[in-house]
Amino acid sequence: MPAYSYVSHLYCPKCSKTYSINEPHNLCVCGSPLLTAYDLDSLNVQYQKSSLRDRAPTLWRYHELLPVKKEENIVSMGEGMTPILPMKKLAEELDIKQLTMKDEGLTPTGSFKSRGAAVGVSKAKELGIKEIAMPTNGNAGAAWSLYAARASITSHIVMPVDAPIVTRKECAAAGADLHLVNGLISDAGKIVARSVEKYGWFDVSTLKEPYRIEGKKTMGFEIAEQLQWKLPDVILYPTGGGVGLIGIYKAFKELMELGWILSSKMPRLVAVQAEECAPIVEAYKQGKTSSEFWPESRTAAFGINVPKALGDFLVLEAIYETGGCAVAIDDARILKEQRHVTRTEGTFICPEGAALFSAVRELREDRWIKPNDSVLCLNTGMGIKYPETIEANASVLKPGDTL
Amino acid sequence: MPAYSYVSHLYCPKCSKTYSINEPHNLCVCGSPLLTAYDLDSLNVQYQKSSLRDRAPTLWRYHELLPVKKEENIVSMGEGMTPILPMKKLAEELDIKQLTMKDEGLTPTGSFKSRGAAVGVSKAKELGIKEIAMPTNGNAGAAWSLYAARASITSHIVMPVDAPIVTRKECAAAGADLHLVNGLISDAGKIVARSVEKYGWFDVSTLKEPYRIEGKKTMGFEIAEQLQWKLPDVILYPTGGGVGLIGIYKAFKELMELGWILSSKMPRLVAVQAEECAPIVEAYKQGKTSSEFWPESRTAAFGINVPKALGDFLVLEAIYETGGCAVAIDDARILKEQRHVTRTEGTFICPEGAALFSAVRELREDRWIKPNDSVLCLNTGMGIKYPETIEANASVLKPGDTL
Repeated sequence: MPAYSYVSHLYCPKCSKTYSINEPHNLCVCGSPLLTAYDLDSLNVQYQKSSLRDRAPTLWRYHELLPVKKEENIVSMGEGMTPILPMKKLAEELDIKQLTMKDEGLTPTGSFKSRGAAVGVSKAKELGIKEIAMPTNGNAGAAWSLYAARASITSHIVMPVDAPIVTRKECAAAGADLHLVNGLISDAGKIVARSVEKYGWFDVSTLKEPYRIEGKKTMGFEIAEQLQWKLPDVILYPTGGGVGLIGIYKAFKELMELGWILSSKMPRLVAVQAEECAPIVEAYKQGKTSSEFWPESRTAAFGINVPKALGDFLVLEAIYETGGCAVAIDDARILKEQRHVTRTEGTFICPEGAALFSAVRELREDRWIKPNDSVLCLNTGMGIKYPETIEANASVLKPGDTL
Repeated sequence: MPAYSYVSHLYCPKCSKTYSINEPHNLCVCGSPLLTAYDLDSLNVQYQKSSLRDRAPTLWRYHELLPVKKEENIVSMGEGMTPILPMKKLAEELDIKQLTMKDEGLTPTGSFKSRGAAVGVSKAKELGIKEIAMPTNGNAGAAWSLYAARASITSHIVMPVDAPIVTRKECAAAGADLHLVNGLISDAGKIVARSVEKYGWFDVSTLKEPYRIEGKKTMGFEIAEQLQWKLPDVILYPTGGGVGLIGIYKAFKELMELGWILSSKMPRLVAVQAEECAPIVEAYKQGKTSSEFWPESRTAAFGINVPKALGDFLVLEAIYETGGCAVAIDDARILKEQRHVTRTEGTFICPEGAALFSAVRELREDRWIKPNDSVLCLNTGMGIKYPETIEANASVLKPGDTL
């Protein structure tokens, strides 16, 4: 009988040390994030692509390639299989043959963070974890506290006071133990690090917890399946912690190993950052394999306000290996692009997603993107999570008025 | 070759007069809303249930039973096939065998209004309409203005000043011509009525436009398909204009006529309203077939603040024909239930959706719902569209602190 999951073990991408999948782990003893390995050889024989056909449109359709061993531990709110939308008017404007957007707004918490939370919380439940703690720029904390509530797991969340107010409300609604910090996500991270030490909670910070990336990876699986296993030429991704980009890259490698991908090449992966917080872009420009802490970072695209990502070396590896690049866009352009994309295509995207279209514009002008390229932008969440980015001026009428 | 749509004509449910599907129509000359008819006999022969199997998870999988004749006119942002979630902890608490929630939060505009807008705007495009106008309590205006933007159709939106601020932002982001009114949706409706007369815009007010209901109807199709064509015993729906409830009822009747439904009975349909705006509940209590205007209506569940629905007689017919009922819940209970459902199940639902769970509670206590009933609540949108309903108190830490 085929297994529900073909997960095998955790391994360190830096020092290659391995760890068991059956007990809680954070970082490798060498300080690196851990990645999840699967027994792809066994899977290859037993698993049929066609078995996907009758499965529900959630990320759990890929359960063989996810780390949760028993179906009963799944904590789901219907996440995954978000649509890939043609952006025809923008494609024409930018002179690109095929421009699409995968819209992660259509998820239980309105952002792609639902994926990591669904898989991370499910695995935490499987491992018997009762309390989790994390720093967040807002959306991840919202997603993890809501999924934790569904799993009856207690969550302790620390976010910057400047994080989007809506995400604060989500944590409160979920009944999380919510705290704010006068500082950045890196400051929140230090508070969490000290607190987990003190109380013995499980630390689910970005990449300190190994399974969030497995959830994000499903974006890659879906892109492949939805495009009939032919990958786009270019994928752009708004990069803060970079877990989604690392995950998509990991997904494509796994699918290639399974022989499911019909394209011969990896898509060129593009990390897009804000000009006021661009450590990955700076490292890329200098040809480095890791980034430096970015002092006094700030941006309206709050989700990518990450001054130093723990997985920076993995993001840069994915960029270099695929012939991709890294681009920074300033806030004024991001907010202008958000309005333009929404008015043109009707898709009310978040500022992080808007940065991608400015990047496409720039890369097209530089001829790095060619007219015949197929280009996919990964919009990470809904615009309504950032109402403060939109002005809504309107006249106030009396009941007897006419327009 | 099978047709893309088997739409036949429009008809009046009051006086039976028919109208062409190929030109714009609003109400019947008798003042009643118009409904859409399909050539189900032709469809029955050619259409196979199994053809759904390989279609994308959007509401357009039911295109044969939708009014858009040509695929090229479809204006889509990936709407439909929202998940039906088990609510296990609440089911146990309420002593119900099977309690589920269809979550319409997972849609392009965060509410079920996406469905009506997608089908309504697509049909408007097919009919060559260039400018639309509508009154709204917020979510419908947001959805229609975003879909209109995608279709390059100009939208004129009038909403109460008290409507949720997020929906105002959505209209502005879409580039709609947005106006506020010091009054209720009924006042906004009168302003729109005068304005469409003056400028010749197409009036897409609830049920004055015949195709919104066809979009909403797909919730019924999905419930049937997702539950393997076995319908639940009870479906609860938050009722303002009531289009969703009418639509679900219409969907089940069409599927029964096609012979696809395996259940012998219709689900009992329950209209849930707020106590401070309960015209349908009042009419139901008195056994009437239409409702009276509800003066000075107000509720935190803003989407159901509709003092008099144009389709009230259709809602009441659906309730009576299915052996359903109508229940009113006060605001304090609605907001308490919203917090309880979110903390218990992790689903951050809107106040309108929360009212349903209070209604289940009440109907279970009254033994109207039996322990063996399968009960489905239709949550119409995301809680994040109403951030003002949640308090988020949190301590503010300094970077050096510990929890």
